Amino acid sequence: MSQQKEHNRRVILVSRPHGAPTSANFRLDTQPVPTPGEGELLLRTVYLSLDPYMRGRMSDAPSYVEPFAVGDVLGGGTVAIVEQSQHPDYQQGDWVVSQSGWQDYALSDGRGLFKLQGPVLKHPSWALSLLGMTGFTAYMGLLDIGNPQPGETVVVAAATGAVGSVVGQIAKLKGCRVVGIAGGEEKCRYAMEKLGFDHCVDHRRDDLAQQLKQHCPDGIDVYFENVGGKVFNAVLPLMNSKGRIPLCGLIADYNSTDLPQGQDHLPLFQGAILRKRLRVQGFIINQDYGDRFEEFFRQMSQWVAEDRLVFREHMVDELENAPEAFIGMLEGKNFGKLVIRVAMDQPGEQ
Amino acid sequence: MSQQKEHNRRVILVSRPHGAPTSANFRLDTQPVPTPGEGELLLRTVYLSLDPYMRGRMSDAPSYVEPFAVGDVLGGGTVAIVEQSQHPDYQQGDWVVSQSGWQDYALSDGRGLFKLQGPVLKHPSWALSLLGMTGFTAYMGLLDIGNPQPGETVVVAAATGAVGSVVGQIAKLKGCRVVGIAGGEEKCRYAMEKLGFDHCVDHRRDDLAQQLKQHCPDGIDVYFENVGGKVFNAVLPLMNSKGRIPLCGLIADYNSTDLPQGQDHLPLFQGAILRKRLRVQGFIINQDYGDRFEEFFRQMSQWVAEDRLVFREHMVDELENAPEAFIGMLEGKNFGKLVIRVAMDQPGEQ
Repeated sequence: MSQQKEHNRRVILVSRPHGAPTSANFRLDTQPVPTPGEGELLLRTVYLSLDPYMRGRMSDAPSYVEPFAVGDVLGGGTVAIVEQSQHPDYQQGDWVVSQSGWQDYALSDGRGLFKLQGPVLKHPSWALSLLGMTGFTAYMGLLDIGNPQPGETVVVAAATGAVGSVVGQIAKLKGCRVVGIAGGEEKCRYAMEKLGFDHCVDHRRDDLAQQLKQHCPDGIDVYFENVGGKVFNAVLPLMNSKGRIPLCGLIADYNSTDLPQGQDHLPLFQGAILRKRLRVQGFIINQDYGDRFEEFFRQMSQWVAEDRLVFREHMVDELENAPEAFIGMLEGKNFGKLVIRVAMDQPGEQ
Repeated sequence: MSQQKEHNRRVILVSRPHGAPTSANFRLDTQPVPTPGEGELLLRTVYLSLDPYMRGRMSDAPSYVEPFAVGDVLGGGTVAIVEQSQHPDYQQGDWVVSQSGWQDYALSDGRGLFKLQGPVLKHPSWALSLLGMTGFTAYMGLLDIGNPQPGETVVVAAATGAVGSVVGQIAKLKGCRVVGIAGGEEKCRYAMEKLGFDHCVDHRRDDLAQQLKQHCPDGIDVYFENVGGKVFNAVLPLMNSKGRIPLCGLIADYNSTDLPQGQDHLPLFQGAILRKRLRVQGFIINQDYGDRFEEFFRQMSQWVAEDRLVFREHMVDELENAPEAFIGMLEGKNFGKLVIRVAMDQPGEQ
């Protein structure tokens, strides 16, 4: 079923996942298309961004943002077209970044919208990634917390993902040695051949730690952490004194229901922080750096215009495929930034 | 046996401790007093500082400093008097801070010495603590990494110790709410009544976590970590967003030989760093802040002169008691900064 003018498809969270989400946690329903009132806009979703952080919001554990409500449409960043406008600042046909969520149509009063104009319209979906939240996360985490210096070694996990691929490329632009970590040979080849990383290690190999050591002969100065789990345990012994660890995600742990049993690695981590004088810092991009979006957007747009960045999307057609694509993403099945093409007839895309 | 003019008592590391050190790891021997050559000084030790970091140097695990050598005299900071000088910058009777180690006499070529002059001579031993390494650690870790703001809550472990007692008092001077954690009721009372902390929780109580929660009703903004272990697990859930954790010691883990078994708390810690956007940073005072000693010394001397700081030493007489005092310190038996009075007849002390 494709997007129609007559009704609004929505994906509803029907129950909270316990561990990995399953298709039973989601339901597709159909509602009438809403009508904008005075000062409102009707937005039609073209692209929906699917991101690991959403797994956190499906649980009701205390977190930095409100959980999604059971029975409600799932939230998420979207690129949308203005279908009807009763708002003085927007007219029909405008492209915007919105938080319309997992549905075809949404009303907006204009707050929080970001109008897309100029070169970004060549790839409107990039406003959700390279020139949007995930690129912003990569840019600020690497440059502000990681503070990489020419000649230093930067290691990034999920190396071909929406954040990791950008972290590594910016680190290369800054003159660093970059070693990625990714799942599978194909992704590793891509990181080296297309993204220009110096090396990429397959985390599915048993000798991950040895491989990493071999390809970081001068140790690791910056580890951009967006994965957690066993990758972290392989990285820690290689961290150099005064190393920096920006931490923006822990996808390996998002589906965990209990703490792992066995050895408690916490004292090891604390000991490393002390002995190596590490700086470990978590950040939530919009809360910590919201006021620096323009700086990021300007610099990143310039790099894009100069063809200095490669970016890969994993595009999945049709809203009804979003739950399966999301479940797969948490298992590492996507290759590139996962985006749902919700409107198959979008005007203006090239 | 007291300090003599005729021979040099020394405490030798005869074997590396496995787990907690025992008296069998140490041996007292006696050597001739060395004679200074051209450009050298003979220093007579008056006070020897005993500090938790020394436990790390008794092992040969990779660390930020060289381990002590087996068969050699143990190293350590000392306050000493110049007995003989063949060095143009020093004369007999000068007081200095030196790294003479666990012995009565040491030669020096003047490098790394710090001459004591003026008001600090009222309490020469404070040059090893309040106005020396431990005070410097407290000052820089709290102010530079912790960055406490008026009205914020600062929690400090080992609250009556050489570092913790100073951290808490500086935080009070900066207008913070200060809650200490210490071992036993006597220490807790001291922290509240003498050091002026708002509260102090006994970490030996079963309800440590609840007590801490009750006395930090607005959460914790800065946790000055110098202990590790279970105290950390009680603090973590109370950390506020954008909280800071300067980390300068992990005495609870220093005697550990294996990682604890049971749950792996590492994902919990990483998750908290992410969700709460914490900054966790290790530091080694002289390596990270060596160039700011003067700033510290000037400010701290002023607070001391204005009677705004209380400081307690745990003074133990005679060098031969150093091993037992050191072993006890790692068990929390000291109450205040542990110092060995090596010279019982020291001139100039008041």
